[in-house]
Amino acid sequence: MTRLLIKNGTFVTMDERLAQYQGWMAIEGSLIAALGEGNAPEQEVALATETMDGTGLLFMPGLTNTHGHAAMSLLRGLADDLALQDWLQNHMWPTEAKFTGDDVYWGSSLAAAEMIKSGTTTFVDMYDHMDRVAEVVEKSGLRASLTRGVIGLCPEDVQKAKLADAIQFAKDWHGGADGRISVMISPHAPYTCPPDFIVKFVEAAHELDLPMHTHMSETLAEVEQNVRDYGCRPVEHLDRLGMFSRPTLLAHAVHLTDEEVALLGERKVAVSHNPVSNLKLASGVARVPDLLKAGVTVSLGTDSAASNNNLDLFQEIAMAALIHKGVSGDPTVIPAAEALRMGTVYGARSIGLDGITGQLKAGMKADFIALSIHKPHFVPRTDYISHLAYAARGSDVVHVWVDGKQLLRNGQLLTLDEEKILAEAERSFRRLRG
Amino acid sequence: MTRLLIKNGTFVTMDERLAQYQGWMAIEGSLIAALGEGNAPEQEVALATETMDGTGLLFMPGLTNTHGHAAMSLLRGLADDLALQDWLQNHMWPTEAKFTGDDVYWGSSLAAAEMIKSGTTTFVDMYDHMDRVAEVVEKSGLRASLTRGVIGLCPEDVQKAKLADAIQFAKDWHGGADGRISVMISPHAPYTCPPDFIVKFVEAAHELDLPMHTHMSETLAEVEQNVRDYGCRPVEHLDRLGMFSRPTLLAHAVHLTDEEVALLGERKVAVSHNPVSNLKLASGVARVPDLLKAGVTVSLGTDSAASNNNLDLFQEIAMAALIHKGVSGDPTVIPAAEALRMGTVYGARSIGLDGITGQLKAGMKADFIALSIHKPHFVPRTDYISHLAYAARGSDVVHVWVDGKQLLRNGQLLTLDEEKILAEAERSFRRLRG
Repeated sequence: MTRLLIKNGTFVTMDERLAQYQGWMAIEGSLIAALGEGNAPEQEVALATETMDGTGLLFMPGLTNTHGHAAMSLLRGLADDLALQDWLQNHMWPTEAKFTGDDVYWGSSLAAAEMIKSGTTTFVDMYDHMDRVAEVVEKSGLRASLTRGVIGLCPEDVQKAKLADAIQFAKDWHGGADGRISVMISPHAPYTCPPDFIVKFVEAAHELDLPMHTHMSETLAEVEQNVRDYGCRPVEHLDRLGMFSRPTLLAHAVHLTDEEVALLGERKVAVSHNPVSNLKLASGVARVPDLLKAGVTVSLGTDSAASNNNLDLFQEIAMAALIHKGVSGDPTVIPAAEALRMGTVYGARSIGLDGITGQLKAGMKADFIALSIHKPHFVPRTDYISHLAYAARGSDVVHVWVDGKQLLRNGQLLTLDEEKILAEAERSFRRLRG
Repeated sequence: MTRLLIKNGTFVTMDERLAQYQGWMAIEGSLIAALGEGNAPEQEVALATETMDGTGLLFMPGLTNTHGHAAMSLLRGLADDLALQDWLQNHMWPTEAKFTGDDVYWGSSLAAAEMIKSGTTTFVDMYDHMDRVAEVVEKSGLRASLTRGVIGLCPEDVQKAKLADAIQFAKDWHGGADGRISVMISPHAPYTCPPDFIVKFVEAAHELDLPMHTHMSETLAEVEQNVRDYGCRPVEHLDRLGMFSRPTLLAHAVHLTDEEVALLGERKVAVSHNPVSNLKLASGVARVPDLLKAGVTVSLGTDSAASNNNLDLFQEIAMAALIHKGVSGDPTVIPAAEALRMGTVYGARSIGLDGITGQLKAGMKADFIALSIHKPHFVPRTDYISHLAYAARGSDVVHVWVDGKQLLRNGQLLTLDEEKILAEAERSFRRLRG
């Protein structure tokens, strides 16, 4: 088995000590074998089958993007700065209705290329034609938690077929791509799925022993509708329907009462915070400092490129560190380290990969990235935790490994054909709008 | 005289039509000679002494950063996530007090390198040792509006010396560096300068026929102090002291009443909006949609790297387009085009360079940048105005010209020695903290 030894690198481990040091790391197979400060010990040098000089590079865990719709990268810049319903009904939905499996494949490939190039190593994807997304994961080498997102506003036979599709996808792909793919079960949202339909997803999740993922309380309007339709707010509604009896990841959770924050903490529900998308769609600012205080695992998602409009998780990390200070008036909330944890270790935790990915530790998966830091915006060398949260960009990423395999080298994709993806994605878009 | 013809480029002109097209542009000396859609006309080809293929590149006006303290790049990451007074009194001020002219030179050089590499062609700088900043402008080739920022909380003889220093700097450098340097007159802020001292700056500005620049209403605390000390809020205070009888650029202006917004509009005062710094320091969110409605010219600044922590104006453009939507609940405010204008044409207007820089137009200064757009986050080719505001990053910039002279080629600085700057900036920091 090959054993890669990286020497003379700067390491930010995201472990409990928040260590940052000059040191070395050894990768064997899909795992981090060992790492430490200073010069590599002699026995590490002897064991190595391959050596890399890490001078000028900062190594850290790969980022986890915990909410998105990769294929919607085809809709980037199609429509912006519009009222939500106008945007959805007149631009997004009519175009998405025409998506074929091939469109999903090329749109997701476009997203995968952008994610790898900006340092994301694990992503959550909720969409349709999920077999084609799984193909992209398999080919790209990324790690992913995939889920067929089902909208239930349709006749019962169509509902049944969609649920069956979601279950079949889980059976086909959970544990797929050498274990890099896991699957979640997803009713799209409380406002797009009748309660009895949501219950069927909860039952399926129990049967398949899988976690759940859904959109919740992204806008004030949907919360108000929930109260009108069901007599309670979304957290209580989903709790009553049994969803939180499964490990659950909620996307957005912008509009919450104190009671809802407390209940999410008690039920150990995770929240994917999507600050850029929430701002762009004018949904509001989630109560992240309160959620963290309540013990909720809060991770970061980009949502799709249609409401962002990029998939650079470093932007979400910076936004998470900035927005809650400005809105609360307290410059000490969400310090740099906490924002970085949201993008790494909390991301892994929120999709059941705690202890598996999201930190640099011996025995964990070799999912890591290297940033080129011999640049003005990383000088002076004061505090790399601060630099990563506030000054870095995804474009600083030059090397990416997932499961011990290198996916990006000197900014060049190794598993995907970038030229073909750019051309096919453009062609898909032209056909969809043509 | 050389005449550069750029062919086959994508152009976003930021002119009144917000044109975006495939086309050509001719540069002669320091000016844009001509530009247009489609293939370059035969006479342009004949006139050209040099030709450049713009395939895969997007050309747009260079960005204008209208508020900053370049030398403070030496303090990037030194202290973050602290309460404002702790940050200032225990970290910033004690370190800044030790700054020598050489520290200002290398800190400003570090900032200049970062700004050029991320597409800024004109910057405003308010600091001390301004002769050394002017040297950096001269050497780097950037355009700048420079000002000695004077804090007046000191004995009268020290006040006098500082004012004399500010006036001498204006006399020495206004119109310097082949006209690329202009000078403003700057009492630091109403809360750091007694009223009679501010009046002396207003008089000097009239005498020298120069505009004024000051910090105003960045925090709620300073507004409250102004009311306590002078019986009125800062806008009325500065208006009474005569400041707005000069063209004035106010940094921050976060906390404003309706009356203050209206008065700024009437007095034709410009505001430099610094969204990232205002969030990081928990100062709040400026009322930019209201200011624009009132006819105020609102431009964008990074503030220093100590409170940002980078100088990427594309991040400010995106933040300006995002934050006001999320805070107001209206997804139509500050659309992409308006955010881009704030970073270009409004930036130029706010420092008296309207019609001179900030747009691609025949007869205007050849201050422009080229972004590499053959990348996932610029696909599909829907709307480059959207892509520039929401998806682009400063790192997409590969070429930069100011005054017709190229400062960056394929990401490499042509006028500054990046290696030396990184080393000297690090050395300055070590000495300051040693």
